[in-house]
Amino acid sequence: MPNNKLGKQTLAFRTRPEVLGTGSVVGVKEGQGPLGKSFDIVLEEDMFGEKTWEGAESKMLSESMRIAMKKAGKTADQVDAILSGDLLNQLMSSTYSVKEFSVPFLGMYGACSTMTEAIILGSVLVDGSYFDTVIAAASSHYSTAERQFRMPLEHGNQRPPSAQWTSTASGSLVIGRSKNPHFCCTYATIGKIVDTGMTDANQMGAAMAPAALDTVYRHLLDTGREWNYYDRILTGDLGHIGKQILIDMAKNLGIDLSPAYDDCGVLIYEKDQDVHSGGSGCGCSASVFAGPIWKSMMEGSISKVLLVSTGALLSTTSAQQGGSIPGIAHAVSVEAVY
Amino acid sequence: MPNNKLGKQTLAFRTRPEVLGTGSVVGVKEGQGPLGKSFDIVLEEDMFGEKTWEGAESKMLSESMRIAMKKAGKTADQVDAILSGDLLNQLMSSTYSVKEFSVPFLGMYGACSTMTEAIILGSVLVDGSYFDTVIAAASSHYSTAERQFRMPLEHGNQRPPSAQWTSTASGSLVIGRSKNPHFCCTYATIGKIVDTGMTDANQMGAAMAPAALDTVYRHLLDTGREWNYYDRILTGDLGHIGKQILIDMAKNLGIDLSPAYDDCGVLIYEKDQDVHSGGSGCGCSASVFAGPIWKSMMEGSISKVLLVSTGALLSTTSAQQGGSIPGIAHAVSVEAVY
Repeated sequence: MPNNKLGKQTLAFRTRPEVLGTGSVVGVKEGQGPLGKSFDIVLEEDMFGEKTWEGAESKMLSESMRIAMKKAGKTADQVDAILSGDLLNQLMSSTYSVKEFSVPFLGMYGACSTMTEAIILGSVLVDGSYFDTVIAAASSHYSTAERQFRMPLEHGNQRPPSAQWTSTASGSLVIGRSKNPHFCCTYATIGKIVDTGMTDANQMGAAMAPAALDTVYRHLLDTGREWNYYDRILTGDLGHIGKQILIDMAKNLGIDLSPAYDDCGVLIYEKDQDVHSGGSGCGCSASVFAGPIWKSMMEGSISKVLLVSTGALLSTTSAQQGGSIPGIAHAVSVEAVY
Repeated sequence: MPNNKLGKQTLAFRTRPEVLGTGSVVGVKEGQGPLGKSFDIVLEEDMFGEKTWEGAESKMLSESMRIAMKKAGKTADQVDAILSGDLLNQLMSSTYSVKEFSVPFLGMYGACSTMTEAIILGSVLVDGSYFDTVIAAASSHYSTAERQFRMPLEHGNQRPPSAQWTSTASGSLVIGRSKNPHFCCTYATIGKIVDTGMTDANQMGAAMAPAALDTVYRHLLDTGREWNYYDRILTGDLGHIGKQILIDMAKNLGIDLSPAYDDCGVLIYEKDQDVHSGGSGCGCSASVFAGPIWKSMMEGSISKVLLVSTGALLSTTSAQQGGSIPGIAHAVSVEAVY
């Protein structure tokens, strides 16, 4: 058995677990953004024909799984496990999505870092020959998250300029094997919790940026790669403020991330879409990777991506009790293999 | 690379990831139960010197990790990852526990099935040589869960006889390698979501029993083992009602589980402790396995255990919207290796 641990926090996937297909489903606002044309489905209305916002989010998630399976040429009974998570209390979006398929289920939670956590553990299951084919997925919905974490929508509360907008979005990846592997998960770095003592739930980008830097820096140390190895380094979702903080902090370490670096929460909306500091939510980095980034990879314009989903670990209870907002980030490199 | 998938849903851990140490911390009521003397720490009061119940739960969880590391002869900087979960919204007990250690973190959620999910994915990371040493952990606290899922404690609401009592308990396992492996994780079966349409949140045992049976039956099919291979088959936590349902359903399949079978929610309290149908909560099966069951294994009275933690996948939102309560169960066999 080869040693698959690289450095301190990085896993090496030596058998090349491959991304066989992706699916992305986003809401109306996300469809109107600059990436709108690159998602598989843009909803005509955010209820998606369901009776509740929660029902709509579950349906978006299962729909993104169906699309990913279809593109991968797999049926649900060929999928060995689904690893999925979301922002709802007790992961109800994932639960109600996955129960439509008769597939073993592993629930993941890392706030907005959930998608990379799912991709990493899914890749481990395939790379280690435990399973042949898995799905990694995540979702979020503005209207389910807003009323759970903040206020009923009807309340119409004001949002400070630093606040981020929970994306109505879901993304799924089918990870498995083919005879001619194309884009594979090669390395993953599992992040530590970084707590800078931030307590402002409207400053999540600032709470997460140090964790993102910690994970990216550790990834580069562990793999021996330079930051400019990657065509794209994508955090998700620091938003405009957190992105700038990360760029500034990296500069202090002598790294000029900016040419290759961007943030999914920045990319998904136009500035004039009234989303303040940009997008957030598990579904944001999941859908941006599964949609537009994957499309760019398939078209050949980029071939080496480091996806660094970032999570702000808070709950309404921890916020009400004055607790800090620890951040976390996990990184996975998805790249062309020839 | 050998194929580590066995049958349809089962993983084989061929390199024998070993349980190097365990830690269990329980509350006052759990200490007064029949297993009270077998836990590492029994609290003198359930606030554990903290200002909030949530703070107490986090402290119990990190304390159980410290005990497990001490028994395993490991320090936190020798631990490559912590896989942990709990019942609190957004896993805040785990977040605040793990942030005390500077160790990569993977958040798990499967309701009361969380402990086996963490043990399984932790064993995968060690077995696949991705990491050397990991911690799998889970916790619950009566007073944090009650006010989050049901009513403020001050409300003093009545509980129907079918209700279960969320255990104030935490359990941790250090999984790694030693030169002379003793008790190892050998096989794991990842469960499917089973939804029988139950909607009564005071009947969780009945909601979970079909999922437990599905996973145990699949485990036996995939491994080719008979149910009586195991000294103990332990669900956690079906309670008195769910346990009987599982025994009856198994009988219909021609399996007389009863000699080896018991339920952690049944074992943890005496009937006269006013807990109605027995214990529940992520911490129940975690602490019963990490405490009394592990003690029996170390003393040599049992050597082959199938731990089947079971989860009722509901939230207050799904309950208020009239949603069903899907169940799930994951199984892991921990056994003496000579």
